[in-house]
Amino acid sequence: MLRLAIIGTNWITHKFVEAALSTGLYQLKAIYSRNKDSAETFASKYPSENSQLFSDLDSLASSNSFDAVYIASPNSLHAKQAMLFMNHGKHVIVEKPMASNYIEAIQMFECAKRNQVILFEAFKTAYTPNFSILKSELHSLGKIRLANLNFCQYSSRYPRYLAGELPNTFNPVFSNGSLMDIGFYCVAFAITLWGKPNHVVGQAIKLDTGVDGLGTATLAFDDFLVNIQHSKISNSYVPSEIQGELGSLVIEHLSECESITKIMRNTNKTQLISNRHPDNTMIFEASYFSELVANKHINHDDILRSLTTIEVITALREQIGVTYQADQN
Amino acid sequence: MLRLAIIGTNWITHKFVEAALSTGLYQLKAIYSRNKDSAETFASKYPSENSQLFSDLDSLASSNSFDAVYIASPNSLHAKQAMLFMNHGKHVIVEKPMASNYIEAIQMFECAKRNQVILFEAFKTAYTPNFSILKSELHSLGKIRLANLNFCQYSSRYPRYLAGELPNTFNPVFSNGSLMDIGFYCVAFAITLWGKPNHVVGQAIKLDTGVDGLGTATLAFDDFLVNIQHSKISNSYVPSEIQGELGSLVIEHLSECESITKIMRNTNKTQLISNRHPDNTMIFEASYFSELVANKHINHDDILRSLTTIEVITALREQIGVTYQADQN
Repeated sequence: MLRLAIIGTNWITHKFVEAALSTGLYQLKAIYSRNKDSAETFASKYPSENSQLFSDLDSLASSNSFDAVYIASPNSLHAKQAMLFMNHGKHVIVEKPMASNYIEAIQMFECAKRNQVILFEAFKTAYTPNFSILKSELHSLGKIRLANLNFCQYSSRYPRYLAGELPNTFNPVFSNGSLMDIGFYCVAFAITLWGKPNHVVGQAIKLDTGVDGLGTATLAFDDFLVNIQHSKISNSYVPSEIQGELGSLVIEHLSECESITKIMRNTNKTQLISNRHPDNTMIFEASYFSELVANKHINHDDILRSLTTIEVITALREQIGVTYQADQN
Repeated sequence: MLRLAIIGTNWITHKFVEAALSTGLYQLKAIYSRNKDSAETFASKYPSENSQLFSDLDSLASSNSFDAVYIASPNSLHAKQAMLFMNHGKHVIVEKPMASNYIEAIQMFECAKRNQVILFEAFKTAYTPNFSILKSELHSLGKIRLANLNFCQYSSRYPRYLAGELPNTFNPVFSNGSLMDIGFYCVAFAITLWGKPNHVVGQAIKLDTGVDGLGTATLAFDDFLVNIQHSKISNSYVPSEIQGELGSLVIEHLSECESITKIMRNTNKTQLISNRHPDNTMIFEASYFSELVANKHINHDDILRSLTTIEVITALREQIGVTYQADQN
């Protein structure tokens, strides 16, 4: 059993805890929130866990009641918090994106190495069964030529922004914006499949808070292009697609790999190649992380994907002129 | 009745002639091909027209048997041929793209003005009824934020290229390639709706002939982006989309505007807003052109769209390093 602590008490933390507990591999030992009430409310959903509550981060880090921590705080805090815990010998699973920028991510992995702990980025998509199916079917498309990776989801906080407020998701202080939150899935998807692109070009529409509301990017590989679009201020109703010379894979809901259809050019034959996922697809990354920790397994592919993804996102941010406080350090 | 001559005897010329005759507004008076046999074979399909056959371009241009000419020769010849005919007082409808590059297109419109004739680019999409419906529904999407315009069609000539031949469609001598042939529709579509972008960025995968096999582009407007992808070496099976803050339009088969579906974000209500087009959508541009000629009507919107489109395509070609002989002149 992996003894878990959590940082952050919002919806995604609930989703991760539910996923983790449902695998039967985790115990929820500690809950941190700056606000004790939030921690109590969170704990009340999992009464059988008898979790300890913390409102001081250093006390939590020093506690021996858990082995690994799930960090779902604002992006701007990921690096500092993860390093604090790793320096106390804890394993860390941190929500995507890993950090505010590439330099922070490098420091985090150096810290993990020094402390001989596992540092893992919770990019759930790559650990779903349908993503594995997709990977195994790619070769049947012949030479890959073009991919369009599309994730556009109107944020429920956007009306508040339009009303003159500054919700966290559009606040650069938290290292937020469309590319970091949503575009991340497209970039990480491509890099998981094909590694580091030769070069990248990005465009964005910025909001007056300084973060990007939406953007496009092209990742150029030797003989194919990955075309990306992401938005937090408009919705998309069309799937993503990977085009080879012989056929295409059409992917519904990129971050979930909800369904994957293969269409072969010669025959026009359409075939559903994916299976139905459970509602909560975080169970796959939760199982995977517990295995990494149990085996003290350093997976270099995971690390390289995380580093390359934040490297590309950092380069794209520079091009579109979205900068964070963390970039000045 | 508009007395028509045609240059080029390939499938698209047949399609245009069929469209033109079906409107009841045209007579096919003259057929030109370098090869007399081709002209005869072409003419045999339209016996009631009693068209005159030509294998010399200057003789055709000097003939008084027709008022307007449809030019569907290779792109590299459009400018020179169009200007020859306009200098003989003929009206010209020229297949897209207008010319090899922006400078040629400017010269063509100057020539049209000098000779007081109509010069019209056959970008059929803009003249379809469904495109008009789309235009009239755009406002219902709220603020436009992101469009993905997608036209990827595996060329029937690509296997010949792969076998080591040099089919026209991949030959830079004819000012060909994916952006000129296929990407054109995406660029012209955007410019018809929204005018000249603030800036454009393009990427491509080039074939060893020097032309682009596929490409992506972003056209940046004040507060939205148009993301484009086009390919002649892979197929796409997903529609195009225009995203506003309130909803989206999903467009099947961009060049034909085959069907258009509106989806409103708040209600998730999906509504087919288009009608069924006839199989041959060139009838709309054919009717329109005959009207322009009959009324000697100079439509500045059409001219601006043609010029801006080739200006953007020329800029994109420069970025991706696809150059033609015509660019050296």
